[in-house]
Amino acid sequence: VTSAFDRDTAVRREDGGSWSGAITDDWSIAGVPNGGYVHAIALRTAVAESPHPHPLTSTAHFLGKTSPGAVEVRTEVVKTGRTYSTVQASIHQEGRERVRTLTTLTDLGLHQGPTAMDGAPPDLGRLSDLHDSPVDRSIVRVADRFEYRMREEAVRGTVGEPSGTARIEGLIRFADGREPDPVAMPLIVDAFPPTVFQLGHRGWTPTIELTVHLRAVPAPGWLLCVLRTRYLQNGILEEDAEVWDASGRLVALSRQLATAAESPW
Amino acid sequence: VTSAFDRDTAVRREDGGSWSGAITDDWSIAGVPNGGYVHAIALRTAVAESPHPHPLTSTAHFLGKTSPGAVEVRTEVVKTGRTYSTVQASIHQEGRERVRTLTTLTDLGLHQGPTAMDGAPPDLGRLSDLHDSPVDRSIVRVADRFEYRMREEAVRGTVGEPSGTARIEGLIRFADGREPDPVAMPLIVDAFPPTVFQLGHRGWTPTIELTVHLRAVPAPGWLLCVLRTRYLQNGILEEDAEVWDASGRLVALSRQLATAAESPW
Repeated sequence: VTSAFDRDTAVRREDGGSWSGAITDDWSIAGVPNGGYVHAIALRTAVAESPHPHPLTSTAHFLGKTSPGAVEVRTEVVKTGRTYSTVQASIHQEGRERVRTLTTLTDLGLHQGPTAMDGAPPDLGRLSDLHDSPVDRSIVRVADRFEYRMREEAVRGTVGEPSGTARIEGLIRFADGREPDPVAMPLIVDAFPPTVFQLGHRGWTPTIELTVHLRAVPAPGWLLCVLRTRYLQNGILEEDAEVWDASGRLVALSRQLATAAESPW
Repeated sequence: VTSAFDRDTAVRREDGGSWSGAITDDWSIAGVPNGGYVHAIALRTAVAESPHPHPLTSTAHFLGKTSPGAVEVRTEVVKTGRTYSTVQASIHQEGRERVRTLTTLTDLGLHQGPTAMDGAPPDLGRLSDLHDSPVDRSIVRVADRFEYRMREEAVRGTVGEPSGTARIEGLIRFADGREPDPVAMPLIVDAFPPTVFQLGHRGWTPTIELTVHLRAVPAPGWLLCVLRTRYLQNGILEEDAEVWDASGRLVALSRQLATAAESPW
């Protein structure tokens, strides 16, 4: 059985060298596809074009709105080296480029060197004291693809009781049992409610750019995510995420630049 | 009088649409041009190609070594919209692409919205208690282009007495009095000693990818930088920077993915 994520990010090479795929409506918020999901389609294509298996750093610039429907993914292998390769992959719909991604890949197994970790995954307490996402899944359809276990303050912020600190800590896994992998990371870091809901913001937070660093291949099981916004400035914000796997290992760091389009202040 | 930075990042449009410039040896470390300096040449070209003045988010992937000498900058205007434009600019030397950048630009004056800052520039104490960079400027030539005022622990880490915490706080300005501006930001965040020197690492820390978010146009005067590495993992690390201007405003956030190529452990 193919998982929903694998089915909905599948790409096929066409004659002429571009790739075809489809954005489905199952990863949308009010009809707008989740940006991390669309990034993941491009990332899957970049991995397919690369001799290296692991997308070490991938940046997506969101140029225009995507919609559920067919996509063409155009790729350019920018460089292929022994340790790294770099691939550009762009999402096109109706002939117009909507998302451009640039990814440098490697084989993480080739990397050996010092480790010094100044931080660890937070202790979220007992799983039974955590809460699934309270969003309306008929609107936030992407949430229906996951199970969440969030701290109570994160849940409260999402339903209109903001904590005042733009920080969300919680566990996430695919609802259909699919295990996490590197290609899923852009979606994972973009699948929680926006951190600025904790500041009372209620509107869209469109992503301008998202960069994801893969630090290790995740172990099976829950992923623990810490999402944080420190600087909301004239409606522009960063949202940082740390992703830790079930073995307690850091697997990804991400940062997105987004805007808080409407203001509750 | 043209500043060293403006002279050494100048680009000229050639017939056929590409741009020519030159990497000088004045921004090198042991003959290798500083990555942020090369990024700045590409960024200057992206700004010249864009109807928007401010590089809101710019990512550089470092594909291969650059050397002092002539460069060709090839550009592609990926998208031009009302609020944002996206420009790709690539540094070529001897016909080979060495650095690819992707930048989304805007006019920051168009952005209005809420502000909520969870952080502030650290108090560095009296200027007279801070220290210029102790690096050997005959080797680290890029340091000779700047004045620094760093906390004593940052200086000690650079000369072989690591603090054990990969954090550097300090002031920086161009030595020739040129005021900071958006195009200089990739260089500014890459012009301090590597944070991992504070962990005892002594070798190269080659940058794989650097992303800089511009949050405001800097005021004249010193820039206060906070550089930090939290996760050095199997020789792979992130180096994050916050840049605050002399008026106390956040002007840039950056993150680079780098490797600590040689290990003291």
